[in-house]
Amino acid sequence: MTTIRIPQVAPSPDKDCEAINNACKSDCCLVLGLGTDEKALIRILGCRNAAQRRLIRDTYHQIYNSSLIDCLNDELSGDFRKAVILWTYEPWERDARLANEALKSRRKNLTELQVVAEIACATSPHHLVAVRQAYCSLFHTSLEEDIISNVSLPLQKILVSLVSSYRYDKEAVDSSMAKMEAAKLREAIQAKKLDDDELLRILSTRNTFQLRKTFQLYKDDYGTSIEKDIMACGKGIVESVMKVVIWCLDTPEKHFAEVIRASIVGLGTDEDSLTRAIVARAEIDMMRVRAEYFNANKSSLDNAVIGDTSGDYKDFLMTLLGAKI
Amino acid sequence: MTTIRIPQVAPSPDKDCEAINNACKSDCCLVLGLGTDEKALIRILGCRNAAQRRLIRDTYHQIYNSSLIDCLNDELSGDFRKAVILWTYEPWERDARLANEALKSRRKNLTELQVVAEIACATSPHHLVAVRQAYCSLFHTSLEEDIISNVSLPLQKILVSLVSSYRYDKEAVDSSMAKMEAAKLREAIQAKKLDDDELLRILSTRNTFQLRKTFQLYKDDYGTSIEKDIMACGKGIVESVMKVVIWCLDTPEKHFAEVIRASIVGLGTDEDSLTRAIVARAEIDMMRVRAEYFNANKSSLDNAVIGDTSGDYKDFLMTLLGAKI
Repeated sequence: MTTIRIPQVAPSPDKDCEAINNACKSDCCLVLGLGTDEKALIRILGCRNAAQRRLIRDTYHQIYNSSLIDCLNDELSGDFRKAVILWTYEPWERDARLANEALKSRRKNLTELQVVAEIACATSPHHLVAVRQAYCSLFHTSLEEDIISNVSLPLQKILVSLVSSYRYDKEAVDSSMAKMEAAKLREAIQAKKLDDDELLRILSTRNTFQLRKTFQLYKDDYGTSIEKDIMACGKGIVESVMKVVIWCLDTPEKHFAEVIRASIVGLGTDEDSLTRAIVARAEIDMMRVRAEYFNANKSSLDNAVIGDTSGDYKDFLMTLLGAKI
Repeated sequence: MTTIRIPQVAPSPDKDCEAINNACKSDCCLVLGLGTDEKALIRILGCRNAAQRRLIRDTYHQIYNSSLIDCLNDELSGDFRKAVILWTYEPWERDARLANEALKSRRKNLTELQVVAEIACATSPHHLVAVRQAYCSLFHTSLEEDIISNVSLPLQKILVSLVSSYRYDKEAVDSSMAKMEAAKLREAIQAKKLDDDELLRILSTRNTFQLRKTFQLYKDDYGTSIEKDIMACGKGIVESVMKVVIWCLDTPEKHFAEVIRASIVGLGTDEDSLTRAIVARAEIDMMRVRAEYFNANKSSLDNAVIGDTSGDYKDFLMTLLGAKI
């Protein structure tokens, strides 16, 4: 399901680190005034999976006694720098940092708050716990406490409940429970109470396979999808975040295709959202995101990225999408 | 803070396993009809910390191609067997099993439900997450889902909220926030709403240092301790569990001293509770539990255990309490 292209026989971490170091600071480049060899960095880091990148980070630190992230920070710039660094972090450290940035942002629109919903609902239970642990280590407070300090009710209650989940991660579906819980969801939604205790209990404790069955039975029994009913509750941020929650639980590829589309349409590009969606999903379900993008927009995700980005930033995103540069 | 006595130079795991195997099944013992050498098992397992016991379990499996737990299960019996096996499990596996046993029990009195409260409130954030992970692996459902299936509201909501916590684990105290949150707790308790959203948000997200400050300011500002005010809400199970929650967060040694006292007073002994308290806290704060027991009862915890137990079971508990047998 990943789009990145890992060489069948990848170079050793030592070789990769040497090449990265050369690309960043080779005397030859400096003498010739060529500066950093961004293409080499893209070819190396853009074509290694999370475990390989971890080894590269550790090895780099051992060999050069300095942090690879600091080196990238010094040598690169702009959206390209941000994308490469996010990709180079441990995935849970990346998400802890993204959540913190979103929560500390002055704006609290869908663009920011959906970041927390994605981490809570579109990642594995193991990853979510690792994000909470990384958050405590990095920011000396818990993710939940920062949600409480920065998000007002009822979204505060919704997000705290969702980030606290640790779902069973295998397929275990009970259809009669799904039917019963679809009815409970319907009842809360019809009362326009999107922070209802029962609704949050269901969404934050059930495994995703069970929830998908529940959402399917909701549609079967009540004739409309749960997200449509949620959006009919109002036009506010709560409804929008709750739609993201449902999509992230049900069909994360639909959500991320939508994030990419929204980051590109209209005047200008929302590079932060575009980067986040591609970096976060390249190793998870980007093939499905691409298919979903095509279904929804009748145009190619790759062409959209090519059309709205340029230079090394474009080359890096396209490498994560599987292009050969 | 631990009471167990680990030898300054502990034997290698190989040597320990050999001695355990000899103690369980030595030909010599069988020929002589002596059976299992329980004292040897107590001397070995009762004097090793969690990391050493893990190594012994792993090494035993490598050498004998069978599980040490299965061996202990075959060779021992009664309360002694239960205590030794609980002690030999990985601590989070032990707690996952204890929580499951409590939740599946037909009775849902304080004796059972406090087990879940202890795991949620008197252990480290890392341990609690490990218990949730072990619970999913062992029982193919999440701890939260089993709480939902087996505990009725409002305790269901309270316990789900508490087991979902991942607190910041270092000392970070904000006194003005503590004062403000003490007032919020007071408001909820005066309204006799022990599953109030704000109350649960505070108890399940704040770090324990912060909460201790909050409880102290509660007493300073309102003249009575929070647990007394909670107990004044009613005489039901909800109030009793909430008192356990407060004690486990504030002074776990008081709670466990009380569990040991309650397991011993009156006719008969509640061995399960006695075993749980000693096994769970021997490596954490048993020195403090012992001091607290003496303060509260003006008698020694060790004498109480000696008076109410016998045989190998007594010897094992006393070994965990630091006695030389």
